Amino acid sequence: MKPGYVRPLDLKRGCVDMTHGAGGRAMVQLIAELFARHLGNEYLGQGNDGAVLPAPTISGKGGKLVMATDSHVVSPLFFPGGDIGCLSVHGTINDVAVMGATPLYLAAGFILEEGFPLADLARIVESMAKAAREAGVPVVTGDTKVVERGKGDGIFITTTGVGVLPEGRDIGGAKARPGDAILVSGNLGDHGVAIMSRRENLSFDAPIASDTAALHGLVAALLETGADIRALRDPTRGGLAATLNEIATQSGVGMILREKDIPVNPVVAAACEFLGLDPLCVANEGKLVCICADVDAERVLATMRAHPLGANAALIGSVSADDHHFVQLTTMLGGRRIVDWLAGDQLPRIC
Amino acid sequence: MKPGYVRPLDLKRGCVDMTHGAGGRAMVQLIAELFARHLGNEYLGQGNDGAVLPAPTISGKGGKLVMATDSHVVSPLFFPGGDIGCLSVHGTINDVAVMGATPLYLAAGFILEEGFPLADLARIVESMAKAAREAGVPVVTGDTKVVERGKGDGIFITTTGVGVLPEGRDIGGAKARPGDAILVSGNLGDHGVAIMSRRENLSFDAPIASDTAALHGLVAALLETGADIRALRDPTRGGLAATLNEIATQSGVGMILREKDIPVNPVVAAACEFLGLDPLCVANEGKLVCICADVDAERVLATMRAHPLGANAALIGSVSADDHHFVQLTTMLGGRRIVDWLAGDQLPRIC
Repeated sequence: MKPGYVRPLDLKRGCVDMTHGAGGRAMVQLIAELFARHLGNEYLGQGNDGAVLPAPTISGKGGKLVMATDSHVVSPLFFPGGDIGCLSVHGTINDVAVMGATPLYLAAGFILEEGFPLADLARIVESMAKAAREAGVPVVTGDTKVVERGKGDGIFITTTGVGVLPEGRDIGGAKARPGDAILVSGNLGDHGVAIMSRRENLSFDAPIASDTAALHGLVAALLETGADIRALRDPTRGGLAATLNEIATQSGVGMILREKDIPVNPVVAAACEFLGLDPLCVANEGKLVCICADVDAERVLATMRAHPLGANAALIGSVSADDHHFVQLTTMLGGRRIVDWLAGDQLPRIC
Repeated sequence: MKPGYVRPLDLKRGCVDMTHGAGGRAMVQLIAELFARHLGNEYLGQGNDGAVLPAPTISGKGGKLVMATDSHVVSPLFFPGGDIGCLSVHGTINDVAVMGATPLYLAAGFILEEGFPLADLARIVESMAKAAREAGVPVVTGDTKVVERGKGDGIFITTTGVGVLPEGRDIGGAKARPGDAILVSGNLGDHGVAIMSRRENLSFDAPIASDTAALHGLVAALLETGADIRALRDPTRGGLAATLNEIATQSGVGMILREKDIPVNPVVAAACEFLGLDPLCVANEGKLVCICADVDAERVLATMRAHPLGANAALIGSVSADDHHFVQLTTMLGGRRIVDWLAGDQLPRIC
C-alpha cells in the first residue's frame, strides 16, 4: 500500500471538499471512482493531460473541424425531464450538429462547490454518461476544480464539442435568403417552463418536462434528404425569438411568422400566460429551427415528422426582404407584431 | 434603429448583470463590444453556435487530434506576473503541447458573477487575447453565462484546446522506463508562491512573479532534437510531486530525484519555508517536466537552456525500477525521503 492510502469515496453521504480539486491523491480518487467509472472509455482512460483521438473522417475525405463550447449553470440542477448532466451533453452536441457537422468528442470541465453532495455528483455524472453513450459521442477528457462554499452553486459544467464537417457543406446563420421557409421541429418552450415550474414550485394538470435531447440524428436525417438547408439552430436561451433575430441580423433579412402555425403545448401556453412569459422567448433544449429553400420545405417537414424528435414539426413562416431585419408575427387575430429579442432577463440560468 | 436599442457598454463603471447571460440583446452587445473586440478573428467572427475550422495538417499528412480542457478558478484573479485571462490560455495550450501536439484552436466558456466589474472583465479578456495572439492559437468560439451575486466568484473561465499530433509520435505518462532521465525546464514553485503571497498580502525583498507561459514553443524545440522523449508534463496543481507520482503510477516505475539539482529561486524557497509549503508540491504554470532516454538527456538539457523559457533547466534525477512506484528524493544531507503527493489541500484555487 502506498503511503497516504485513502478509503473509498462515500458516495452516499460524502461531500465534495477542497482536496478534491487540489491535484493530489483525493482528486485522483474522485476521478477514478466517480468520473472514470461512469464516463470511462479508451480515450478518457489514457490518463494524460489531454486525449489523443483518431480523426478518421478528416484524414479520409478532407473536411473541416467544428468546435463549440457551452457552460452550464442551470438551476435547479435536477428538473422534470433531465438534469445539468444530460443537458451539458445535449447542449454541446447540438451546437456542433447545427453547423451541419458530425459530433465526435466531448470535453467536460467541472467547477464544484465545497460541500456539494457526492451522491448528487454521481447522479449527474451518470446522467452525462448515459446521454453521451446514447448519442455515441464520448467524453474524452475532463477537468475538476473545487471552490469554497459560497463561491459557486453546487456544480457548473462546461462542455466542449468537436465534430467534422464534410467539405462543401455550408450551413450558417448568414445564409438565409428572402423566400426561404422557416420550420421548427416541435413544440416550443417546454424546457424553460419545466425549469420555471420547478423553481416556482408550480404543478400543472399535465406534467411539463424539459425537451432536452441530442439533435444530431435529426440533423443528419435532414441533411440526407439533399434539401437546400441554409441555417440550422437550436433555440435555447432567448428562445425562438432570439434565434430568429440573430439569423435575421446575420443574413440581413426579415422574417414573417404565422402565430397559428407555431406549435406550443397547450399546458405550456397556459403556464406561460400564468408566469407572464412569451413562449417564443422561452428556452428549448431539444428543438431545431431550420431555414431552407422554399421548394424543399415540404420534404424537410416530412422528414422531421418521421423522426422521433420531430413529431410536432411545423412550417411556421418565411424569410422576407427587409432592410430593418425585423422578425414579425402575424397573430391569430390577423394583426402583426414585431418579435423582438429580450432586452432583459426573463429566465435566468435556464441552461 | 431596431427597437430595444441599448447604449454602448460602460466599460469604466459598468457591471455584469443577469441580462448579459440571458441570450438576448444585452448578451449580444457584451459579445460584440467586449469579447469580439479583443479576441476577434475570422473564426469567432462567424457568429454561429460553433466555429468552422480548417484542419490543414490532418488532411495533408494523417495524424491525430488532441483535445484538453481546463476550468480556471484562480483567486485572486490578478496576481504578480499574470491574471486568470492569460493563465486560462497558457494552461490549456500547455495541456495540448505536452501531448506532443501542436495547439491549433481554443474555445472559452465564461461563468460571470452578477456585479462583476466590466472593467475587470475587459482587462481579463484583453490579457487572454494578448496571450492567444502571442501563442498563435486563436480563441475560435465561446460562451457566456451569468450567475446571481453570491453564486460565483467574479469569473471562472473554462478553456478547451484542440491540436494535431503527427502520426507515430507517442508521448505520455505511461512511457517512462527505468534508466530514463528526468528534467525540469526551470525554477519550481514561482506560480503558487506568487498567488499565495498576493493572497496573504506578503511582500518579499525580491518580487515573486508567476511563471505563467505557453510552453508549445519549448516543446517543439525539444521534439525537433529527435531525442527519445517518453513523457512531458506541466507540473501545475500539486506541483512536481503530483506530476511525478502520476507518471510513476501510469508507467509502473519509481523515481529518484536529487534535491541539490532541483532548481528553486532562493526567494521562493524562503517564502515556502515561511508559508509552510514544500516547493515540490507548489503549482507551476510555465514549466515543463521531461522524461527522456538517458542517452538523450544532455541534448534535451542543452535545448531547454537555449530556449527563453528554459534558462534554468536542470537534470534532476532518473527513473528506477520500483514495484511500489515510489518517488524518492536524495536530500542535501544525503538521506532519502519519499516525495508523496498531497492528500490534503495545501493551496486551494491556484489555477
